[in-house]
Amino acid sequence: MPETSYHMSPDEFRRWGKAVIDWIAGYLERIDSFPVLSSVEPGQLRAALPPAPPAEGEPFGRILADVDKLILPGITHWQSPNFFAFFPANASGPAILGELLAAGLGVQGMLWATSPAATELETHVLDWLVGMLALPEKFLSTREGGGVIQDTASSATLCALLAARERSTGFASNRRGTDGRLVAYGSSETHSALLKAVKIAGLGEENLRLVGVDERFAMRPDALASAIEQDRRAGKMPCFVCATVGTTSSQAIDPVAEIGRLCQQHGMWLHVDAAMCGTAALCPEFRWIHQGLELADSYCFNPHKWMFTNFDCDCFWVADRKALIRTLSVLPEYLRNPATESGKVFDYRDWQIPLGRRFRSLKLWFVIRHYGLEGLRHHIREHVRLAQEFATWVAQDDQFELAAPAPLNLVCFRHCAGDAFNQALLDRLNASGNLYLTQTRLDRRFTLRLCVGQTHTQARHVEQAWHHIRKEAAALQASAADRILRRSEGPGD
Amino acid sequence: MPETSYHMSPDEFRRWGKAVIDWIAGYLERIDSFPVLSSVEPGQLRAALPPAPPAEGEPFGRILADVDKLILPGITHWQSPNFFAFFPANASGPAILGELLAAGLGVQGMLWATSPAATELETHVLDWLVGMLALPEKFLSTREGGGVIQDTASSATLCALLAARERSTGFASNRRGTDGRLVAYGSSETHSALLKAVKIAGLGEENLRLVGVDERFAMRPDALASAIEQDRRAGKMPCFVCATVGTTSSQAIDPVAEIGRLCQQHGMWLHVDAAMCGTAALCPEFRWIHQGLELADSYCFNPHKWMFTNFDCDCFWVADRKALIRTLSVLPEYLRNPATESGKVFDYRDWQIPLGRRFRSLKLWFVIRHYGLEGLRHHIREHVRLAQEFATWVAQDDQFELAAPAPLNLVCFRHCAGDAFNQALLDRLNASGNLYLTQTRLDRRFTLRLCVGQTHTQARHVEQAWHHIRKEAAALQASAADRILRRSEGPGD
Repeated sequence: MPETSYHMSPDEFRRWGKAVIDWIAGYLERIDSFPVLSSVEPGQLRAALPPAPPAEGEPFGRILADVDKLILPGITHWQSPNFFAFFPANASGPAILGELLAAGLGVQGMLWATSPAATELETHVLDWLVGMLALPEKFLSTREGGGVIQDTASSATLCALLAARERSTGFASNRRGTDGRLVAYGSSETHSALLKAVKIAGLGEENLRLVGVDERFAMRPDALASAIEQDRRAGKMPCFVCATVGTTSSQAIDPVAEIGRLCQQHGMWLHVDAAMCGTAALCPEFRWIHQGLELADSYCFNPHKWMFTNFDCDCFWVADRKALIRTLSVLPEYLRNPATESGKVFDYRDWQIPLGRRFRSLKLWFVIRHYGLEGLRHHIREHVRLAQEFATWVAQDDQFELAAPAPLNLVCFRHCAGDAFNQALLDRLNASGNLYLTQTRLDRRFTLRLCVGQTHTQARHVEQAWHHIRKEAAALQASAADRILRRSEGPGD
Repeated sequence: MPETSYHMSPDEFRRWGKAVIDWIAGYLERIDSFPVLSSVEPGQLRAALPPAPPAEGEPFGRILADVDKLILPGITHWQSPNFFAFFPANASGPAILGELLAAGLGVQGMLWATSPAATELETHVLDWLVGMLALPEKFLSTREGGGVIQDTASSATLCALLAARERSTGFASNRRGTDGRLVAYGSSETHSALLKAVKIAGLGEENLRLVGVDERFAMRPDALASAIEQDRRAGKMPCFVCATVGTTSSQAIDPVAEIGRLCQQHGMWLHVDAAMCGTAALCPEFRWIHQGLELADSYCFNPHKWMFTNFDCDCFWVADRKALIRTLSVLPEYLRNPATESGKVFDYRDWQIPLGRRFRSLKLWFVIRHYGLEGLRHHIREHVRLAQEFATWVAQDDQFELAAPAPLNLVCFRHCAGDAFNQALLDRLNASGNLYLTQTRLDRRFTLRLCVGQTHTQARHVEQAWHHIRKEAAALQASAADRILRRSEGPGD
């Protein structure tokens, strides 16, 4: 007698799985046709959803129809070739299929034993990447180091900070708690993940120094050196520096070599966050961004930003895996197993904050094999070339100016008419649906950012973006002139 | 002129996407045929992988063939109906397709504005679940509370602990760092995630009290009360209790109501971790597990364990969202946007450790709609019924004994022949490939655990498991008797 089942049968799974594959292919084919930034109002989706869940199951076709009807209007299209906002979170066919396969296998990679392939493929692919990016060999798992996939660079920063906290206190903070003496350092341009990590790890915001930057928005080693000296004199214990290769605001590249020498001198942990830019080092001509990396204790970059691997996939390496493992390891009875006790394997739960983990290396493996080094390099070079071309147009237009150097694929720029004008310009552009840009502040001035990194962004999309920017700026100037004119003609004037 | 592209074309994506869908359907159809626990040796997969990544891209068919050839032997089949180890991490067709769709859309849900549907669907589905599980209404987003999807219960515990740390210090720890006075409490059976969180958050292991348990392995409120009193007298600041509804070892259920009253009395934050068991509350007859939950400040359960939603998906609620948000919020310029500033929306980055986040509510929505309450309840009841039946068989067999009450779908048991025998029995069973069990220690004795929670586990799988357990135990006894016999016949005896 067959048991009652509400599960989707294998045949239904085949049918609806293929429907979802077709849906995604179709979505990506027509993605240009959507306004990039969703224009729904707060609460709009919730108002359209039933207040109570269904008592009985519904046909899958009806659910999929609701994706079109209800979900799509509330989507900001990160995969649109006209998405130039924030940093990209690009994806690709092989990555999506890797994620799908990982979901289908449904294994846990928390321990080597809970699915050896999940751990070993991850270690292997991260060793591959050390070579692909020409990272220092100390990060190899075959040396004292090793790599692990984290969800995000925020988590990588937190893990690095925790390992630094423990190493600098002889692993006593884990036992006794932090004591308000430890100090961490970044620059005023360092990602806010550092501040969040400093709070989470119990150091406290007052023990974070965000030192000054130079005219290129890169950390000033002299400012760092003074901050460290001052803290030492005050009885503090400097333990951690986060240097950035490609800041979020302007893609500034901190002088890692000089910072690294200071860290060595003071016995501090140096973490290098190359979340966005690391991918560029696939190409030999961009490897200068990693100068000094041999002095780092840890490093991360995000294939989920620019290497065609869908979120989440941050690759994080340490030079001394023992320090990280000792910081994060706990071993209850129910996780004991012969492989762990043999000491011959990595248990990645000890390399991260959570316990459970997906088989994320599958998608990374798929991407690297599908593209090969050649394919990856081609598209990265193309993105950089398009951004550089855009920067040239900005520089040549006397209405606009570059707000920062554009070393790779991010261009920071502004119209010459001031903050309010640039804010209004940004709002008009984003409301148009033609493209999506975000802003930052550089030298306290409102600045537009255009980052070229979406999988399907081609020359024409960047050309159109520039066209729209100039057109909206002209329209805004005209309407401003018009307002001034009308005001000057008004009765009270 | 078309640009050079190494990307997978939409048509290739359709072709290979359907191949992966067929692969998964075929895998799940024949999953019984694999040994549940992988028997590869450490290093085996790595030795089979090329030492260097490919210079040029490879055909997708070759990659997929390598999944069969290289990856499958290293897989421990968590989705096998014969997987009874740890806690399950079950999945289902609609969940896998939800994950696929989320990967295809590739949006970031860090802010409401970065894809409003991702935030609103999540809030909505978590409000649905408050009703589905009959949780206290204070957890609704329409009150002062609200729910959010975390990756794991470990992260939920950490977030709860951080909010507790801040609330109890008037949000000063975030500013000044922790000071070694704060104390957190669990029981000796609480998940090791609490210890990890206490270390990460800077409280230190010495400020964690794991109080004693009763004969059912549930936290003793009197022991908790004494521990709190003692800490107060010593000038410590008790701030957090983690109570468990369904411990990992034995599914013990802490007396939340009594613990909650102590927390109220001392102004402490009560977090309730129902990672495994929460799902049972879909069925009215199991809702007794949540008695006292109205006194909790936060609560979590994992649809990725027992609610047919593939990992990762931990649902976490707080009664006072302001405390959580104030704890975890940082707002740099590049994340500012009108929606955030209006105060009308949730930005889920402020409810979690990382910044970025996937559109995980899609899969949860798909699961709830596909099964309906009726379908979910049916399968949960069936799992509990099968576990209870297994417990009856154990209780009726004079070679075996139950090691703990089996309130829901986990049975802790042991053979009467002692620790070494049980360890040998476990090793034989797991080496056979017929099933996968893990162990724990209860009353210091080696104990086997059998948890019924895999999507496709049916009566016959549990019957076979019991058959194998008895058969291997008999074989082990016979070989032990044989060894004793041979030793007594030996020349030296």
